[in-house]
Amino acid sequence: MKRIAKFLPIVGWLKTYRGDTFVSDTLAAVIVTLMLVPQALAYALLAGLPPEVGLYASMIPLVVYAVFGTSATLAVGPVAVASLMTASALGGIAAAGTPEYVGAALVLAALSGLILVAMGLLRLGFMANFLSHPVISGFVTASGILIAGSQIGHILGIKGGGHNLIEMVHGLWQQLGGINPITLLIGGGVAMYLYLCRRYLKKWLTGLGLSARLADLSAKAAPVSAVIVTTLAAWHFDLGAAGVNLVGDVPKGLPSISLPSLDPEIWATLVPAAVLISLVGFVESVSVAQTLAAKRRQRIDPDSELIALGLANMGAGISGGSPVSGGFSRSVVNFEAGAQTPIAGALTAVGIALATLTLTGFLAFLPKATLAATIIIAVSTLIDFAAIRRTLAYSRGDAAAMLATIILTLVQGVEAGILVGVGLSIGLYLYRTSRPHSAVVGRIPGTEHFRNIRRHNVEIDEETLVLRVDESLYFANARFLEETVLELVSEHPRVKDLVLACQAVNAIDASALESLETINARLRDAGIRLHLAEVKGPVMDRLKGTDFCAELTGQIFLSTYDAWKNLVKPPVDKPCESGAPVI
Amino acid sequence: MKRIAKFLPIVGWLKTYRGDTFVSDTLAAVIVTLMLVPQALAYALLAGLPPEVGLYASMIPLVVYAVFGTSATLAVGPVAVASLMTASALGGIAAAGTPEYVGAALVLAALSGLILVAMGLLRLGFMANFLSHPVISGFVTASGILIAGSQIGHILGIKGGGHNLIEMVHGLWQQLGGINPITLLIGGGVAMYLYLCRRYLKKWLTGLGLSARLADLSAKAAPVSAVIVTTLAAWHFDLGAAGVNLVGDVPKGLPSISLPSLDPEIWATLVPAAVLISLVGFVESVSVAQTLAAKRRQRIDPDSELIALGLANMGAGISGGSPVSGGFSRSVVNFEAGAQTPIAGALTAVGIALATLTLTGFLAFLPKATLAATIIIAVSTLIDFAAIRRTLAYSRGDAAAMLATIILTLVQGVEAGILVGVGLSIGLYLYRTSRPHSAVVGRIPGTEHFRNIRRHNVEIDEETLVLRVDESLYFANARFLEETVLELVSEHPRVKDLVLACQAVNAIDASALESLETINARLRDAGIRLHLAEVKGPVMDRLKGTDFCAELTGQIFLSTYDAWKNLVKPPVDKPCESGAPVI
Repeated sequence: MKRIAKFLPIVGWLKTYRGDTFVSDTLAAVIVTLMLVPQALAYALLAGLPPEVGLYASMIPLVVYAVFGTSATLAVGPVAVASLMTASALGGIAAAGTPEYVGAALVLAALSGLILVAMGLLRLGFMANFLSHPVISGFVTASGILIAGSQIGHILGIKGGGHNLIEMVHGLWQQLGGINPITLLIGGGVAMYLYLCRRYLKKWLTGLGLSARLADLSAKAAPVSAVIVTTLAAWHFDLGAAGVNLVGDVPKGLPSISLPSLDPEIWATLVPAAVLISLVGFVESVSVAQTLAAKRRQRIDPDSELIALGLANMGAGISGGSPVSGGFSRSVVNFEAGAQTPIAGALTAVGIALATLTLTGFLAFLPKATLAATIIIAVSTLIDFAAIRRTLAYSRGDAAAMLATIILTLVQGVEAGILVGVGLSIGLYLYRTSRPHSAVVGRIPGTEHFRNIRRHNVEIDEETLVLRVDESLYFANARFLEETVLELVSEHPRVKDLVLACQAVNAIDASALESLETINARLRDAGIRLHLAEVKGPVMDRLKGTDFCAELTGQIFLSTYDAWKNLVKPPVDKPCESGAPVI
Repeated sequence: MKRIAKFLPIVGWLKTYRGDTFVSDTLAAVIVTLMLVPQALAYALLAGLPPEVGLYASMIPLVVYAVFGTSATLAVGPVAVASLMTASALGGIAAAGTPEYVGAALVLAALSGLILVAMGLLRLGFMANFLSHPVISGFVTASGILIAGSQIGHILGIKGGGHNLIEMVHGLWQQLGGINPITLLIGGGVAMYLYLCRRYLKKWLTGLGLSARLADLSAKAAPVSAVIVTTLAAWHFDLGAAGVNLVGDVPKGLPSISLPSLDPEIWATLVPAAVLISLVGFVESVSVAQTLAAKRRQRIDPDSELIALGLANMGAGISGGSPVSGGFSRSVVNFEAGAQTPIAGALTAVGIALATLTLTGFLAFLPKATLAATIIIAVSTLIDFAAIRRTLAYSRGDAAAMLATIILTLVQGVEAGILVGVGLSIGLYLYRTSRPHSAVVGRIPGTEHFRNIRRHNVEIDEETLVLRVDESLYFANARFLEETVLELVSEHPRVKDLVLACQAVNAIDASALESLETINARLRDAGIRLHLAEVKGPVMDRLKGTDFCAELTGQIFLSTYDAWKNLVKPPVDKPCESGAPVI
């Protein structure tokens, strides 16, 4: 039973499901549905897909996640960054909006689902850790800028396009003459309205006596009013005939289930993009889910999340939807609206299905400029320039990886940006560990502690050097260690014993073992004994039985202090007056 | 003056150069020249180049290295592994032996020289460290097998070819009918003779009363006698007419100086190969030079070596030579023959020049099978299967990288092999550090030492947990740390204080800082204080001034013992009976 609950979390919580929980879940579902309808249409627009693809991605995947997901409040569906990445991936395959383009989007969802499930089954979730925080943060900031840039064309009523900032600016510049004033009025007006709502509505509503939570939710529902007003206006004034781009006919009815294209060439082409979408989507989903779960002292299981998100994407791929992941803003709304279980997500899917069955006639008149304004205001929260300053203050290496990610994403596109960011953060880490910090340490008088002779006032001994190496020893720094030790002994001609204090050495690989053998041999030739101290259990287990241990000229001490007591003469520590043992 | 000596080591040692040193250097140069003439021809054959290219690579580069090199005994020139890599790199550009092929070889040498010089000036020598010992060792073993395989065709008198083992076996199999018996007799005979010389000659000569050093040098000169005997035989019996492939006309005279082709396309194509040849050549040269220097208590400077090897390769590129590096066997012979300064290398260049001016008529009759046999016996020392077993016993990860390098090199070629090996060793290192070892530690009774509660009999406290994390905290393990801590406190419900013992934490990057903030906040919500202990100086310098330090619920202690004294009640340590201060 426990094993079933591990793979099917729904089995665990469904048996204790009660009526009042259902009421909470339904309320949250209604609010999230209101929020999701325009978002689903908007993100389809962003991905270059017909509007129904966004709606389809908001049905089956949500139900699948409700069954397999471990987060009670994560709101799955189309999201901004994944939609941008989808557009970038499909751009090379077909023209936006064509049947091939839509078909490739379904393949991308299915493929990304397979990759996530495979990562879950193979427990490869740790791979997501290689997207460091500065890289993710920089990538999201740059994506926000790109997304906003891609929507400016819709607000101006001209054809934008391009997968990086340079192409976008160039495209907009060339068509600047074709601006449609009514479209601009709608787009600009909605953007202004949404901005003001975000900025002031909550404060104003609480001033009117609404509870903070209700005021917050109302402010977040502002896009719904904008959609209703501009759609009615477009219908009443026949704005379509005036050159305002409308959403147009959305097929009424639910998605049909069918396998996506099985063309191996398309699948192979989309693999790199699918891997990146999967990783980014997973990282974002898990971090949202963990943040929300922690607030209620719940836990989520990242490996189960991989499988749940993977199955949700596979569900999208067979039901006409684009790639999905957990959305930040919707999940927060879901949480604050009181969602108690994943049932809220399933009910949201029901809400979207009802909307698709009843509202498509109405939504056909929705101006694309309204959606574009919604997107721009939504992604403006993704852009976080303060994070750059904060990271720069803490670590120049991290800041470099972050800036490289931002710049590359902006000028080369999402895939180049994230790959360079990951490569750079790994490279910088390796570089740092390849030149490890080390310190000659001395004894803090009267204690068993040893500290850097340059930072503390400590006892030292001319014939015994204690070198603390502050890094695991591995191929990248093995030679560096050799050079450090040889230089050290050449600077201290009277040294007879060298102790390597290994409390920070968490591993010694085959290259470093070879270097230790070299160091031992060279010190022996120079009449210096090599000792080790504070070798950790797992490292010692490995060293036992190697040639190095057999040939070591000195000893292996439990602690630096043991080494000091044995090697330094005359002994610097004096017994208590009473003769009682101290150590 | 010191700065000049840094860039021009010759300035440092030339002023103390004496007559008896010159005698030693000349003797070593004569012996190395005898060894180098057949090797230069053989490695040109291996690289698919005309014989004179090998000779030209043994003149100017040696003189250049003598001026700029820091090793007194490193014998620079064409070497086996670099020649194999050259053949592999040029294979995709032109047919072996054509003028384009030769031209590309010069470009490869010049490019590789530029890369080495740039690495030296930018102090990028550390990049060579990423070629871990198991990867280099596996690569050299596989190269040895490939080199031997590539020469079998010459010994059989048929056309071999192919850049990996599968192509080679296939090529040989198809032409097996065309074996030339006389060629086989020469090749097989020479191989047998050289094998026996290597195995028994030294012992036999010392038995006759020769000194060990002289016997060793004589044994190493065995290829010279094989060259002389088979060349005379080929000339006397007109073996060329009998279908035995001979070296043929070698242009008499010294190389002319001219720039290599400046076709940007060829340069761009050769960059990846040039980088790999540079790195491998540099690693091999430095390790030989360091080993030999250490025997005489001398030091070499790796950054200067980069520049010296780079200029030597640029010299090769403008004087008709192929890429060069420091050869292991020749350097050892140079050392043992008594070379005292780089003058020995310059004199070797003079020897090769004299040989080129006088011996080309004679060398035209040298059977290629003799050269092939020389190569096979020479590279057999590169193949080290024992290293696989040794590495496997110490570390499965290292052994996996080694085996992958060997297998990929054999079946896919040198470039794929080394790239996969490097990628795999970096990947395995990152994987290991992404799941760091950590241990709850307790106090060894009566001491200030703390050890793993699972390995040692130690005191623990129910309300105070001390967790030692055995790794630097960075993006790849930041989330892992969060999970470890949260799981730990959920298993110990009575805990009120958690101490992170950071003696093994050598760095905390921006991602990990974020995770520490998260841990601090979550523990605070759970009523648990977070403390740090044994934070290292450089890490502490960074942490000061961050939000994390400001919000930390607990304290930062100098030592774990300080934390223990402050947090654990009642105090477990008792003062000495006499009341004298103990700590």
